[in-house]
Amino acid sequence: VESYASEAEYIRALELRSALPAGFRCAVRPLTFQPRERTVPAPLPMNLSLVLMDRPTPDFGAVFTRNQFPGAPVIMGRQRLDQPAVRGILVNTKISNVGTPGGVEDASALLGTLAALLDAQPGEFFPSSTGIIGWSLPVAAMAAELPALVGGLQGGTILPLARGIMTTDSFPKVRRAAVGAGSIVGVAKGAGMIEPNMATMLCFLLTDLVVPRAELRAHLAWCVDRTLNRMTVDSDQSTSDTAIILSSGARGPAEPAAFRAGLLSVLEGLALDIVRNAEGAGHAVRVNVQGAPDEAAALGVARAVANSPLVKTAVFGNDPNVGRILCAVGDWMGNNGLVLDRSRLQVTLGGEQIFRAGAFCLDAAREDRLNAYLKERAFESKRRAFPAHDRTVDVDISLGGPSGPVAVLGTDLSYEYVRENADYRS
Amino acid sequence: VESYASEAEYIRALELRSALPAGFRCAVRPLTFQPRERTVPAPLPMNLSLVLMDRPTPDFGAVFTRNQFPGAPVIMGRQRLDQPAVRGILVNTKISNVGTPGGVEDASALLGTLAALLDAQPGEFFPSSTGIIGWSLPVAAMAAELPALVGGLQGGTILPLARGIMTTDSFPKVRRAAVGAGSIVGVAKGAGMIEPNMATMLCFLLTDLVVPRAELRAHLAWCVDRTLNRMTVDSDQSTSDTAIILSSGARGPAEPAAFRAGLLSVLEGLALDIVRNAEGAGHAVRVNVQGAPDEAAALGVARAVANSPLVKTAVFGNDPNVGRILCAVGDWMGNNGLVLDRSRLQVTLGGEQIFRAGAFCLDAAREDRLNAYLKERAFESKRRAFPAHDRTVDVDISLGGPSGPVAVLGTDLSYEYVRENADYRS
Repeated sequence: VESYASEAEYIRALELRSALPAGFRCAVRPLTFQPRERTVPAPLPMNLSLVLMDRPTPDFGAVFTRNQFPGAPVIMGRQRLDQPAVRGILVNTKISNVGTPGGVEDASALLGTLAALLDAQPGEFFPSSTGIIGWSLPVAAMAAELPALVGGLQGGTILPLARGIMTTDSFPKVRRAAVGAGSIVGVAKGAGMIEPNMATMLCFLLTDLVVPRAELRAHLAWCVDRTLNRMTVDSDQSTSDTAIILSSGARGPAEPAAFRAGLLSVLEGLALDIVRNAEGAGHAVRVNVQGAPDEAAALGVARAVANSPLVKTAVFGNDPNVGRILCAVGDWMGNNGLVLDRSRLQVTLGGEQIFRAGAFCLDAAREDRLNAYLKERAFESKRRAFPAHDRTVDVDISLGGPSGPVAVLGTDLSYEYVRENADYRS
Repeated sequence: VESYASEAEYIRALELRSALPAGFRCAVRPLTFQPRERTVPAPLPMNLSLVLMDRPTPDFGAVFTRNQFPGAPVIMGRQRLDQPAVRGILVNTKISNVGTPGGVEDASALLGTLAALLDAQPGEFFPSSTGIIGWSLPVAAMAAELPALVGGLQGGTILPLARGIMTTDSFPKVRRAAVGAGSIVGVAKGAGMIEPNMATMLCFLLTDLVVPRAELRAHLAWCVDRTLNRMTVDSDQSTSDTAIILSSGARGPAEPAAFRAGLLSVLEGLALDIVRNAEGAGHAVRVNVQGAPDEAAALGVARAVANSPLVKTAVFGNDPNVGRILCAVGDWMGNNGLVLDRSRLQVTLGGEQIFRAGAFCLDAAREDRLNAYLKERAFESKRRAFPAHDRTVDVDISLGGPSGPVAVLGTDLSYEYVRENADYRS
C-alpha cells in the first residue's frame, strides 16, 4: 500500500517508474480547434500524442471494447491486428471519433500525413481517440501539428505521454515492472465520462523484452481479463476502450511466466489508479467472491455488488448497510437462475464477519468498527492531482461452492459523481 | 396524462378511485417499539395493516421477488399458494423480517394470534413486511395491537391502506379499473431503499369479480411481467418484492380479456406512481425498444439504457447527452453476444430523431429543443406529498430487427438520490 502526502511526492514516485523501455520515443503537442457541430465561445483544446518505435515490430497486440457501437479507431485498430508489423500509436483527446460520418476516412487521412513524415505506411500506426461522441475530428488542425509532434520525439520518460492522454483524469497513471534484463511500462487514462459524451479507458503498454506476437497477445488477453475487465465505475463499457501492447525486443528474451506476472502487476496497478481517479470517487471498493458455481457466476455476483447504487451510496456515507450487499447477491443469483445456500454463505466487510450460519451477526460494537473502517478507507472526493493512498474497502463473499476467488474493483457513488455527470449547461 | 397542483387535488383524485371492492374490509394501526439489535434514542414507529375478506376465497394469487435472499414473508407466501383458500393479508412497515434467525417463527406466531381473534387458520393469511433487513419483528408489541386492528376494520375506501403501507413513499398510490359489474383496485408502496437497508415494493390488488384461481394467477403473472417487472430505480430487486391479488367474487363474472386489460391498466398506473415517487427522482423515463433479435434482447437493451448512471445523470441535468444512450445500447449488445447494425438503428428522444442512417443527426437547434423537452418533463426533485404530473421522458430505440415494442420505466439520478441513500449518521 502506497500513500502520497502531496502532488510532488506522487510525481516523484511516478518518475521512479517512468523510464521508457529501450527502442521507444514519445511526444505530445497541444492544439486548439473550432468544432464543426456546435458553436463554442472559444476554440477547444486538444492534445495530440505519439508513441514511435525505432523500428517496426511484428510483436504487438491489442484488445478493444466489446461495445457494439465502437468508434473509428477501434474499427481500424481491429484491422491493424493483421498487419505484419507496426511502428506506433497516434492518440488524440477531446473527440472520440465515434458515430460520425467519415470517421474512418478522417483518421486514415491523419495517419497518411504522419506516415509520409516518417517514411512509413499508414497501416503501421494505431489511431486512438478519446472524447466527445458524435463529433468529427478537426483533421486540418491536427495534421498541421504533426511535423512539430514528430520533431519533439524524445526517449527517457513516459511521464509526458501519461499526462498527454489525460482528459478528465486529475492525475497521471504510470506503472512499471522490471522483468529480466528489461521492463514493461504502462500508462492509462481514466474510466468515467464527464464532459458531454466523454468516454473511454485507454491503456498503452510498452516493453523492450522479446515476446513473440502470439504469446504477447495471449498474455495481454489473460491479464486484461483479470484487471481492466474487472473494474467498474459506471457499469458502462465505452465505445472506445482500448489496450495496446508493443514490444521492441531491444533487451532480449523474457521468461514467459515472469513476463505474464510483470504484465499482470502493471495492469493491476493501472486498474486501481483508474478506479481511484474515477469522477467523484471517495472510496475504491474491492469485491472478492469465491465459492460460486463457476467463475462466470462469481464475476456476476462481484459485479452486481460493485455496481449496486445502494451499496455504492452506503459506502460513500461510511454507512455499513450490509443488508444491501446481501440484497445485491441474492438479486443477481435469483435473476440468473442460481440458488443461494444461505447456510453456507459467509460475508465479511474489512475482515469483520457480517453474515454466517444463515443469519446476520450484527451488533452495535461491530457496526461502530465497520463505520471506522469505512472512514479510514476513504479519500477526499474532491478531485486532486494525486491519489492519497492505495487502500480499498474490501468486501469478501463466500458462497460455499466450488469456484476460486475473483475480484472486481469499483467505487462509491457520491454527490460529486452526479455533479460531474449532470452537466449544468442547461 | 394527469396533473395535480396540490396535495388536496391529488387526494381528491385518489378518493374517486379508492372505493373498496365488495367483500373486503381493511384497517391500519400505528405502534412503537424498541428494536432488539440496536440502541435507539426513542421507540421506532411501525404501521400494522390488515386486509380481510368477508369469507375465505380459493381465488387468489401472488408473485414474489426472484431475489435468492428472500425474507420470511416471501418464503411463507410461496407456501400459501398451495392453500385451498385465504382470507387476508397482514402487513407491517419498519422491519422487513429478512435474514434474521427465527423470522418464519415470528411471523407464524403473529398470524396465529390474528387467526384466533378471527376464528380462522394462520395459513389463511399472507404475512407481508417491509423495512430494515436483518432486524427481528417486535412480536409482542405487534401482537398487543392486533385486537384493536381487528376492531377497526372498515369497508368503503382503500385509501387508509394505501397510506398505511407507505414507508419512504411521499404520497399514497391507488389505481382502479371498472370492469363489468365490478372493479379491480390496487395499492402499492414504493421502489427505492432509503433508510438503512430499507427495501421493498409491495402491491395489493383486490377485486370483486369472479376469476377462477388458475386464470387469476395467469392474468397476474402476465400483467406483472409487463409492468412491475419493467420498472427500475436502483437496478436492484429487493428481498421482499411482492404482489398479491385476492378475488371476493361478490359482483359476478368478468370477461377474461376485459379483466386482463383492467388489471394491466391498474398495474401500469401503479408502476408509474412508484417510479415517479422513487427517492430523489426528478424525471420519470420510459425507454421503448423494438426491432431487437427477440423480446429478451429488447428488454435487456431497454434496461441497460434505463439503468445507465451516465444516461440517468444527463437526464437529471436536462442535458441531451445522446451519445450516452448509444453507448449503453452498444455496451449491452456487445457484452451479450449480439451484433448492432448501425445502418438500421434509429433513436429518438421526445420524438426528435437523434440517430439514423448510420450516424448522429445533431445540430444546435435540435439540441435546444431537446433541452427544452427535458425541462418540460421534469418535476421537482424535492419529495412532496403529490406527483406534479404523469409525464415521462420518452426514449425510442429501433434496432431494425423483428421484435415488437417493449417499454421499461426508470428515473434520473440526482443529488437527492445520493443524499437519501448515503445515510449521514456517521
